[in-house]
Amino acid sequence: MFDIIIIGGGPAGLTASIYALRAKKKVLLIEGNSIGGQIASSPRVDNFPGFKSISGAELGERLFDQATELGIEFEFANVIAVSQNNNSNIIQTDNGVFESKAIIVATGAKHRHLGVENEEKLIGNGVGYCVVCDGEFYSGKDVAVVGGGNSALQSAIYLSNICKSVTILQNLDFLTGEESLIDEVASKDNVSSRLGVVVSKLIGEEALQQVEISDKNNAREIINVDGLFVSIGQVPQNEIFRNLVELDDRGYIIASENCVTSNESIFVAGDCRTKNIRQVTTAVADGTVASIAACSYIDNKK
Amino acid sequence: MFDIIIIGGGPAGLTASIYALRAKKKVLLIEGNSIGGQIASSPRVDNFPGFKSISGAELGERLFDQATELGIEFEFANVIAVSQNNNSNIIQTDNGVFESKAIIVATGAKHRHLGVENEEKLIGNGVGYCVVCDGEFYSGKDVAVVGGGNSALQSAIYLSNICKSVTILQNLDFLTGEESLIDEVASKDNVSSRLGVVVSKLIGEEALQQVEISDKNNAREIINVDGLFVSIGQVPQNEIFRNLVELDDRGYIIASENCVTSNESIFVAGDCRTKNIRQVTTAVADGTVASIAACSYIDNKK
Repeated sequence: MFDIIIIGGGPAGLTASIYALRAKKKVLLIEGNSIGGQIASSPRVDNFPGFKSISGAELGERLFDQATELGIEFEFANVIAVSQNNNSNIIQTDNGVFESKAIIVATGAKHRHLGVENEEKLIGNGVGYCVVCDGEFYSGKDVAVVGGGNSALQSAIYLSNICKSVTILQNLDFLTGEESLIDEVASKDNVSSRLGVVVSKLIGEEALQQVEISDKNNAREIINVDGLFVSIGQVPQNEIFRNLVELDDRGYIIASENCVTSNESIFVAGDCRTKNIRQVTTAVADGTVASIAACSYIDNKK
Repeated sequence: MFDIIIIGGGPAGLTASIYALRAKKKVLLIEGNSIGGQIASSPRVDNFPGFKSISGAELGERLFDQATELGIEFEFANVIAVSQNNNSNIIQTDNGVFESKAIIVATGAKHRHLGVENEEKLIGNGVGYCVVCDGEFYSGKDVAVVGGGNSALQSAIYLSNICKSVTILQNLDFLTGEESLIDEVASKDNVSSRLGVVVSKLIGEEALQQVEISDKNNAREIINVDGLFVSIGQVPQNEIFRNLVELDDRGYIIASENCVTSNESIFVAGDCRTKNIRQVTTAVADGTVASIAACSYIDNKK
């Protein structure tokens, strides 16, 4: 029986493990993909405090080393089902069944990708999903933003202060964000919108050079941009917890900054909970808070 | 005119500057004491993600270097008064007057000290103020906690899982924390309480070795401990903002995790706002969130 099982090995989960291990709890971390979570695919992180520039993979490794030195137990497995009995949580994976007094869910969220040619290859070299993270790398350059909702419009406004030009590429014939953001976008001299177009191909070998867009009649056009930010939503991975904790209508686990869920022995940290700003910094804060809350829950239950 | 003036150069303020500078805002940071804020006095930080072990001063310097490289402007000064007119915030310091579109308050909070002989000298070598930060350094050792409120009792419970013995030293004749915490403390075999005593002296050259306690009759006694955690409250430094933003009854600026205050052009980050967990991780999260909110406020106001 573990004190705490942490599901997800990104910055939130790893930070939670560091705090729990220093509180002398017996901790298992379960991760099915790569250590570091979503940040592991960022070639360059310039906004995490303490590092002028570090790759996401290295940041993830440093966190994992820190947890390892403190005695974390680690299981490379996918969680299939979670249930509870009176005294414990039972976590069924494709590599065995594990039991704990408390769970910290830190499963993250994935940026929705376009699914077009060359997209995966060019991530970090012209293709990005987070302007606050990577916008500054395109200072003075021409960029495009895919999407027309609030987050795409906010991304375009953010980039307009940094980049030479910003082109919004929206599949519908209108923008779907709030009126005030649409007005703000319209007031920017260096922002323009292309409506009713989809991105059909990305062109570039080492780095993105051009984007092919297509309209409803399948007429194709090539535009020259140095950067493309895809802002068409994020997808959390919380379906297996749906019977135990409350999710919002987009699938995020409902919790405030206290990281407490509707289930007293399940805590939540990082991008998978309801919050506005999803950054590594806010993930490690959640890891801290969820871990202290879980430790306190265990101590007081004894 | 600056876009954003950040008041306070701890992890919250410095992280806020990094995010704002990467968004191409003109940023001034004002700090009157040491860069790094409260963490600068911690000789060893083992729980900040990315560093197995680092001194607080070094962590502060790394953050400052990161902000410097991005072009931060810095003013070593104490803020005397803050006021507003229609279009700007006016910050009066002992080294000049500065104006900005938005303010981020990141003034932190100070742990209340005992004010006894040798206390300052032994910080980090036997004397601590945060068990979640430093408790693990006293694994298997004898420690004492000064205080009798919720936070002192939670500290004692936390330490009871790590240390050989924990002695609570409380000046009143009773503990003032919640009944459930008092019960929990009573149930711990390795926790005892000494009521009606004050700490009158700390003894030790390189590291803490003994603590002198005194009762109401001034009878003195020496107890042997390796660590002493002082848990008698924290004090925020927000009085100069009282006419502009709402404070709670303890002097913290009222804000949720969104870091928005009752004043639309003033944002807040870190230990100085109402929150439950004050750690470097939660400070850098606030720095991020407050900065993004301030940038968005400025962009939308134009």
